[in-house]
Amino acid sequence: MTTAVNVGLIGAGRIGRVHAENLAYRIPEVNLVAVADVFLEAAQKCAADFGIPTVTQNPEDIFRDESIDAVIICSSTDTHARFIADAARAGKHIFCEKPIALDLPTIDEALQAVAQNGVKLQLGFNRRFDPNFKAARDMVVEGKIGDPHIVHIISRDPAPPPIEYIKVSGGIFLDQTIHDFDMARFLIGSEVEEVYAIGGVRVDPAIGEAGDIDTAVITLRYENGVIGTIDNSRQAVYGYDQRVEVFGSKGAVVVGNRTPHTAVYSSAEGVQSARPLYFFLERYMDAYLAEMRAFVDCIINDTEPPVTDIDGRIPVVMGLAAWKSYREKRPVRLAEIG
Amino acid sequence: MTTAVNVGLIGAGRIGRVHAENLAYRIPEVNLVAVADVFLEAAQKCAADFGIPTVTQNPEDIFRDESIDAVIICSSTDTHARFIADAARAGKHIFCEKPIALDLPTIDEALQAVAQNGVKLQLGFNRRFDPNFKAARDMVVEGKIGDPHIVHIISRDPAPPPIEYIKVSGGIFLDQTIHDFDMARFLIGSEVEEVYAIGGVRVDPAIGEAGDIDTAVITLRYENGVIGTIDNSRQAVYGYDQRVEVFGSKGAVVVGNRTPHTAVYSSAEGVQSARPLYFFLERYMDAYLAEMRAFVDCIINDTEPPVTDIDGRIPVVMGLAAWKSYREKRPVRLAEIG
Amino acid sequence: MTTAVNVGLIGAGRIGRVHAENLAYRIPEVNLVAVADVFLEAAQKCAADFGIPTVTQNPEDIFRDESIDAVIICSSTDTHARFIADAARAGKHIFCEKPIALDLPTIDEALQAVAQNGVKLQLGFNRRFDPNFKAARDMVVEGKIGDPHIVHIISRDPAPPPIEYIKVSGGIFLDQTIHDFDMARFLIGSEVEEVYAIGGVRVDPAIGEAGDIDTAVITLRYENGVIGTIDNSRQAVYGYDQRVEVFGSKGAVVVGNRTPHTAVYSSAEGVQSARPLYFFLERYMDAYLAEMRAFVDCIINDTEPPVTDIDGRIPVVMGLAAWKSYREKRPVRLAEIG
Amino acid sequence: MTTAVNVGLIGAGRIGRVHAENLAYRIPEVNLVAVADVFLEAAQKCAADFGIPTVTQNPEDIFRDESIDAVIICSSTDTHARFIADAARAGKHIFCEKPIALDLPTIDEALQAVAQNGVKLQLGFNRRFDPNFKAARDMVVEGKIGDPHIVHIISRDPAPPPIEYIKVSGGIFLDQTIHDFDMARFLIGSEVEEVYAIGGVRVDPAIGEAGDIDTAVITLRYENGVIGTIDNSRQAVYGYDQRVEVFGSKGAVVVGNRTPHTAVYSSAEGVQSARPLYFFLERYMDAYLAEMRAFVDCIINDTEPPVTDIDGRIPVVMGLAAWKSYREKRPVRLAEIG
Repeated sequence: MTTAVNVGLIGAGRIGRVHAENLAYRIPEVNLVAVADVFLEAAQKCAADFGIPTVTQNPEDIFRDESIDAVIICSSTDTHARFIADAARAGKHIFCEKPIALDLPTIDEALQAVAQNGVKLQLGFNRRFDPNFKAARDMVVEGKIGDPHIVHIISRDPAPPPIEYIKVSGGIFLDQTIHDFDMARFLIGSEVEEVYAIGGVRVDPAIGEAGDIDTAVITLRYENGVIGTIDNSRQAVYGYDQRVEVFGSKGAVVVGNRTPHTAVYSSAEGVQSARPLYFFLERYMDAYLAEMRAFVDCIINDTEPPVTDIDGRIPVVMGLAAWKSYREKRPVRLAEIG
Repeated sequence: MTTAVNVGLIGAGRIGRVHAENLAYRIPEVNLVAVADVFLEAAQKCAADFGIPTVTQNPEDIFRDESIDAVIICSSTDTHARFIADAARAGKHIFCEKPIALDLPTIDEALQAVAQNGVKLQLGFNRRFDPNFKAARDMVVEGKIGDPHIVHIISRDPAPPPIEYIKVSGGIFLDQTIHDFDMARFLIGSEVEEVYAIGGVRVDPAIGEAGDIDTAVITLRYENGVIGTIDNSRQAVYGYDQRVEVFGSKGAVVVGNRTPHTAVYSSAEGVQSARPLYFFLERYMDAYLAEMRAFVDCIINDTEPPVTDIDGRIPVVMGLAAWKSYREKRPVRLAEIG
Repeated sequence: MTTAVNVGLIGAGRIGRVHAENLAYRIPEVNLVAVADVFLEAAQKCAADFGIPTVTQNPEDIFRDESIDAVIICSSTDTHARFIADAARAGKHIFCEKPIALDLPTIDEALQAVAQNGVKLQLGFNRRFDPNFKAARDMVVEGKIGDPHIVHIISRDPAPPPIEYIKVSGGIFLDQTIHDFDMARFLIGSEVEEVYAIGGVRVDPAIGEAGDIDTAVITLRYENGVIGTIDNSRQAVYGYDQRVEVFGSKGAVVVGNRTPHTAVYSSAEGVQSARPLYFFLERYMDAYLAEMRAFVDCIINDTEPPVTDIDGRIPVVMGLAAWKSYREKRPVRLAEIG
Repeated sequence: MTTAVNVGLIGAGRIGRVHAENLAYRIPEVNLVAVADVFLEAAQKCAADFGIPTVTQNPEDIFRDESIDAVIICSSTDTHARFIADAARAGKHIFCEKPIALDLPTIDEALQAVAQNGVKLQLGFNRRFDPNFKAARDMVVEGKIGDPHIVHIISRDPAPPPIEYIKVSGGIFLDQTIHDFDMARFLIGSEVEEVYAIGGVRVDPAIGEAGDIDTAVITLRYENGVIGTIDNSRQAVYGYDQRVEVFGSKGAVVVGNRTPHTAVYSSAEGVQSARPLYFFLERYMDAYLAEMRAFVDCIINDTEPPVTDIDGRIPVVMGLAAWKSYREKRPVRLAEIG
């Protein structure tokens, strides 16, 4: 491809704007030519801020535009599958935020449309592109860990989302843990065959009243014998706590948090250092850019997207299995879910 | 008590010699007056090295000696319960290495003898006295963590013990994890009601042939709602890996390893620091002294030993529950064990 | 000011392009309207990459353009003073890379032009805007250190610049240390009254043949009694080593390096973590953006630039004093230089 | 030598008791047979605590005792040289705390007596035996640093000593820095040829009234071209701050402090870790044992003590040169002192 990739953005909310800024300013091979949002004002502000020529309330305008090569889907989760299918049928390559949907038939229908139309689909599992986690994955791939035996993922939010959001989120396992399920697959490069989830409401009773939990530990049994744990909380008062560890026959890699600065203060009271970066947008800014670069590269070079297809389906299966395990208080095999 | 505490040592092996050195040189309130070992030479060498006047092959000689106030039991595990009972009936205070026994009826019999004779019993869960873990426990007690939500214990040996030892050890959950079960109770100050254990043979097939596993992750559900995990391996090639983390409503405490030195070397190849102390005797030397001081103090001041009674029983219940969970592939309540 | 600030860029080399990217994409209040470079191709490429409408080989075109409010001077050091004076006489606000010049009369002439024309001048001492060093400075200002007693600055490059550059650079004290002289003033907020410099050629004999040294330690005596040291090397094989420490009556702050990732690898060989970011553009990317934002803010709000005037002169005085000290092997007071 | 080394202790104060405990309990090849102190009660208490058979007020009793092979001199500094000479003439091997004396003629007389009588002399520069600093020295020796270019020593006490002590101490450079002068020689393995000292009274005016200073930075120029700095303060409110760094052509080694525990606490207020060990007896306990083992080994094996002779003289020369430099405000060559 000798010309630039023309991209349309669907959804101009918080994460949509992150992608818009990266596409507009940091990926020269891209023209960000259109933005759609049901809230027209949001689309207009996004267009003004990042110099996007076409603004619309209707994603169909983007799908219909033959000059557009690819779409970035950042609208609300319940629209993901439909827009994927529409975009696929319109022959657009697709970058879509996670999850595709909260149920498997809907996901499968969307994936089928992608397959039938031969377009590329990349899922927004941004953490794979975080340089810290990527360094751990690289060490596993290079054999520095030897045979992996145990993996731990700690993934704690600084504060819970609004209750209204929680109600439609699919619950902690499909909303928060889904990123960690992807990380679990990414770090080890093997599939999980069984999950065991326990948890409870420890942070805010309103989360319980909304039918969700806010604290959980999920144990994973991989097909290749690796054992994993995921530690989730909706509230770490000291900030966004995102760490992983992989232990194996030749060693271990431990990935810590990032901090806003490296100043360490010693006084009569103790030795104090900076808290982790508080928010996912701070922690993962590099990752958002890197995933978008990867998406554009795979369009330009006609290669396979690094996170695609079953990568969008399996974490949902894992989330459904985790809910079943939590409710039935027993380990649940992914094969029970489908 | 105005005079010194007279102590007899039973078992002059590796750990017996650690206690002997501490008793002989670092706890002035104690006279180490006798040592017994079935291997007379070991007892003799111990006596010579640490200036112990009386040497015997027969622990009965120690139990019968009316001048002796307390005994330290460091003989092989299968003799612990019997020697506890004998010592109790002889009116001696007792410090005994873990575990009391590998089955509950034997333990209960020993504990009954202790109760009936009104002697003090302290179990050798030395890690409670490690200044690093103690700092974490202190923070929990002081309320700095708020309500604890999640606890993680990582406990990996540098290399597996001999296969002959493994065969009589009760297996990983009763031999290695038993320390971590105690740590789990110590850190949180609440009892565990259910365990779920998965694991496998990843380090050495010979361990599997001996009927044991060498890699395990145990999930704990506490009565107070806390969730815990224990990560065990018989072989961390980089050294003795002993870390804990407690996370709660007001913060988290993470306890790292100790290293032989603090020198950090930066070169074109990377930034290199020291591996953890390789061996439990290096890591826990302070803890062995502190636990022995605590035992002597509770004799002198006639107070309750800090690790006693059910502290010796419950970790065995947890170990048996972990084995049942591992074999039946389901969470097991401690109440199922007894 | 209700409209955007129109900015012209003079010099489209490495650092000029850094500023261009920040001005074009990350500071919405700015229009980057023109770029000049003696190498027309460099200017043209810069214009194409960052969407700059006007390109010229002649900075005069920018000074003459009445629509331009401010200039960014990134041309070679020997042109700085002249362009500052020209821009000042044209009524443009000025951001200029360090140093203004290598001799004081030239600097004074440029500063006089700035003062006479009432324009703002900000010097490119970017490290003041580094979040790590800024955290240390903030602690000093907040009184967390108490009365500062001692300050240390470690500032080692990953590799020496080309010999041709070294020959015209003014030597290590005016080229490399000048940043550290600024940091010394910034961290403590007091002036230095005397310097003592020792050093030598340890990295590359060619540097010595060019009349320069490549390794130096400078001791600083401040007016307020603080003592400082600066450690400079042209080659730290492990990367760009940029640390500071301030020690005082109430405590100390130590600022470490930044690393590309937080993964720590433990193996039988040791515990390995990432080297510092290798290059100043990686380490100080945030700082370059922050200093440019500060410059634009002070234009918009008509406030004093945070690094101005004597901040451009004093480090050159310190550099000249350091050379005198090095050559005469004795402490030299700044008052001896002028 | 097939029999044990018989040792007499002169001086039963704080440091004398440290050596007594090590000799009595941790070095089996030694019999600690006698203790002398001008304060008879101190000697008696020491004897009782560590099982020393002979107690005296008069060191002559120890020198005269033909069964005694070696003496440990821990009396006040003004007696060191005399006792060294007396012990040497009595044919005893000598371990003596630093410094030998505060003036060179007295030192030289003592060293002459040692040389004439062929006894071994080891000086109590305990920090050479600290495992942390030793790791740095080992890396230098192994060539991991390449050619050393720069060395930094930070050595700050937690609190100043009593004014009465300061008055007879020889001042900061002969009392506190003397350890760092030894460390400077130890780390690099080359002699210093020139020192430049600046400093002041920042901690306590009473120290100034006693004729001393409490804050100092000393720059060192080594014969082999290495440049060094020493940072001294009588008061680091956060504890005993003892760090070193060696930088060279192949890399750098940085040695940090030791802490009482590794627990790191994260809360909404920040991330807090333990302060350095507060006191030299805590930090250097291992080093005191190791230096005494080394002394005993060199007696048993008839080898050269690791810190001897000129190692006791040169740091005093450096201290005198530092005072001269401080007073004359110029770099002073050691050759000016003698």
